[in-house]
Amino acid sequence: MKRIEALKQKAFKEKEFDGFLILNEAHLLYFAGFPGAACLLIPRNGENMLYVYSVNYEQAKAEGKEFKVELIKGGENLMSKVAAQVKAFEIKKLAFDMLSVENYRSLVKGLRGKTRLKPQNVLVWELRKIKNSEELLLMRKAGELTCEGMKAACETLKPGIKEYEVAAEIEYAMRRKGSWGTAFETIVASGARSAFPHGGCTEREIRDGDLVIVDIGAAYQHYRSDMTRTFVAGKPSEKQKRLYEIVKKAQEKAFQAVKTQAKAKAVDAAARKVIEEAGYGEYFVHGLGHGLGLEIHEPPTLSPQSKEKLATGNVLTIEPGIYIVGFGGIRIEDTVLVKEQGAEKFTDGWHMLEIAK
Amino acid sequence: MKRIEALKQKAFKEKEFDGFLILNEAHLLYFAGFPGAACLLIPRNGENMLYVYSVNYEQAKAEGKEFKVELIKGGENLMSKVAAQVKAFEIKKLAFDMLSVENYRSLVKGLRGKTRLKPQNVLVWELRKIKNSEELLLMRKAGELTCEGMKAACETLKPGIKEYEVAAEIEYAMRRKGSWGTAFETIVASGARSAFPHGGCTEREIRDGDLVIVDIGAAYQHYRSDMTRTFVAGKPSEKQKRLYEIVKKAQEKAFQAVKTQAKAKAVDAAARKVIEEAGYGEYFVHGLGHGLGLEIHEPPTLSPQSKEKLATGNVLTIEPGIYIVGFGGIRIEDTVLVKEQGAEKFTDGWHMLEIAK
Repeated sequence: MKRIEALKQKAFKEKEFDGFLILNEAHLLYFAGFPGAACLLIPRNGENMLYVYSVNYEQAKAEGKEFKVELIKGGENLMSKVAAQVKAFEIKKLAFDMLSVENYRSLVKGLRGKTRLKPQNVLVWELRKIKNSEELLLMRKAGELTCEGMKAACETLKPGIKEYEVAAEIEYAMRRKGSWGTAFETIVASGARSAFPHGGCTEREIRDGDLVIVDIGAAYQHYRSDMTRTFVAGKPSEKQKRLYEIVKKAQEKAFQAVKTQAKAKAVDAAARKVIEEAGYGEYFVHGLGHGLGLEIHEPPTLSPQSKEKLATGNVLTIEPGIYIVGFGGIRIEDTVLVKEQGAEKFTDGWHMLEIAK
Repeated sequence: MKRIEALKQKAFKEKEFDGFLILNEAHLLYFAGFPGAACLLIPRNGENMLYVYSVNYEQAKAEGKEFKVELIKGGENLMSKVAAQVKAFEIKKLAFDMLSVENYRSLVKGLRGKTRLKPQNVLVWELRKIKNSEELLLMRKAGELTCEGMKAACETLKPGIKEYEVAAEIEYAMRRKGSWGTAFETIVASGARSAFPHGGCTEREIRDGDLVIVDIGAAYQHYRSDMTRTFVAGKPSEKQKRLYEIVKKAQEKAFQAVKTQAKAKAVDAAARKVIEEAGYGEYFVHGLGHGLGLEIHEPPTLSPQSKEKLATGNVLTIEPGIYIVGFGGIRIEDTVLVKEQGAEKFTDGWHMLEIAK
């Protein structure tokens, strides 16, 4: 309920809305505390209405005691139902997070011109971007579990093993320690495919001397973590070693730049400068990092185009990389918390290029 | 490319569009054959344009040779870029799948009234709903892998084990046999939480006599499978046995009703009738099933409100259930292919209520 109060403060006090409609799945999880709601209508005056299909109705009643839980019956149109309630609450200016064109039209039709509608997704993100201590506990735990996965990767990787077999051991290790699942699809991309940042995880057999990008994340109670290490199965070449050191130094420079009020693009630039000065600027083909939490990609984004400043309580990835088609790729990534004077790493360790067996 | 030709047939020949804009992630995977594109513009005349951010640019160039791959540069607005290309193609009537209000507005602004826009998501679904032989191979394989997971559940379940520990063994078994990951978050919901269809998978310790719903799916090359069995750790009670038999009979009646041209709501009714006649109609709180493929929930839906008829090549779940708050839940689910004269099961076996150890 504190989260809803905070949103009401932003939307109804600091701005002049008198209702907020939430439809995004992760936003709903954030405000309701459990998954499965279809939408949430927050009026300035009146009870917060949580709309739920019958499949999740009993769970919502049991776990959503702070809401008026409203059943969407078979055949009922959700937008018409919401429109009727908006009218009943006499909402004149309704903020919403995201609406498809079709839902928007059907809502506008139901409201018959009595209510103004305006997208205000950014207000929800202003809240979600700042993790509170309860969320940070879960994200630290997700980070610890992710490190267990990386340990398993180190123990498993060897020439002759298939990418998906490595993934199996990683995910099993995280799960056995208590992970609620993976934060995203595990990446074990070896050889030429390591040059593609989203190279996936296939049946390819890892060969001696291959670069192998291992990008993994555990989830814990809906919160996610994200970590990448790059290994060589066998003896690394001089070029592999040199590129690895560049990426590692770039990540360190970025860590040093992280603190409250730092410009996101300045943190990106700190890492990018190292890679550019080494002559590989054009091969760092993505932003330095992204926020994460209930979702794996959240604001804020760290890139040359970022306009934001970091704030205490942001949790984000720091993940510089160099990707050379035909040669392979190297990425090193950790999840960090932004603090007053620096960064706290939620993932760490396993900095070893060579996996000799 | 055959898929794009089929869409062009539907949209440009059978209807009067002269361009189609695809933004949905799974639709993009369906048409491009690899993940990571940001959008696809299909003109009546001219090359199909695949828009990609820099992070996926090299991969798209390597794997998307049939497209004109267009890089979205840092800071570029995708909708403005698309609008310029729509004008260059002289598209007058543009179909699209899904657009948020904000993207819609920004596209409309860029088009300056020269092009009419219309949502036509249903046309893409008309294609995606009918799986071809290549897709069916992958879905059969996903089904086999899912059965391996269910075997592991049977071998692992016992009083004293925690829900997530069972999930660990299930996912590991599927992965080791070649799964590309889970089709959705594994559900192992025991005791009172089994009464919630989406009861999740927690740290709860499973107790002797608990109902345990195990709802799992393997993914194979982006295609998904879905299967549920309900077990009792230990000796089932008479009531548990009775309810299990009702749900099992409901599923069998539904299987018998599946064939090309069957009404979706008639298949739902075949199962619902069994449960209603046994006096538990109000406890079957969801539709009978849903389509699946690249996504875990796709059209067609099997429910009392369904208006569709089934067609050869549809792949769907058949999953009746009874959920009694305070007592627990029972669900039995398989993935099936709709054929001319019946259903082919992609998941099967492991019909055993009692797991005695």
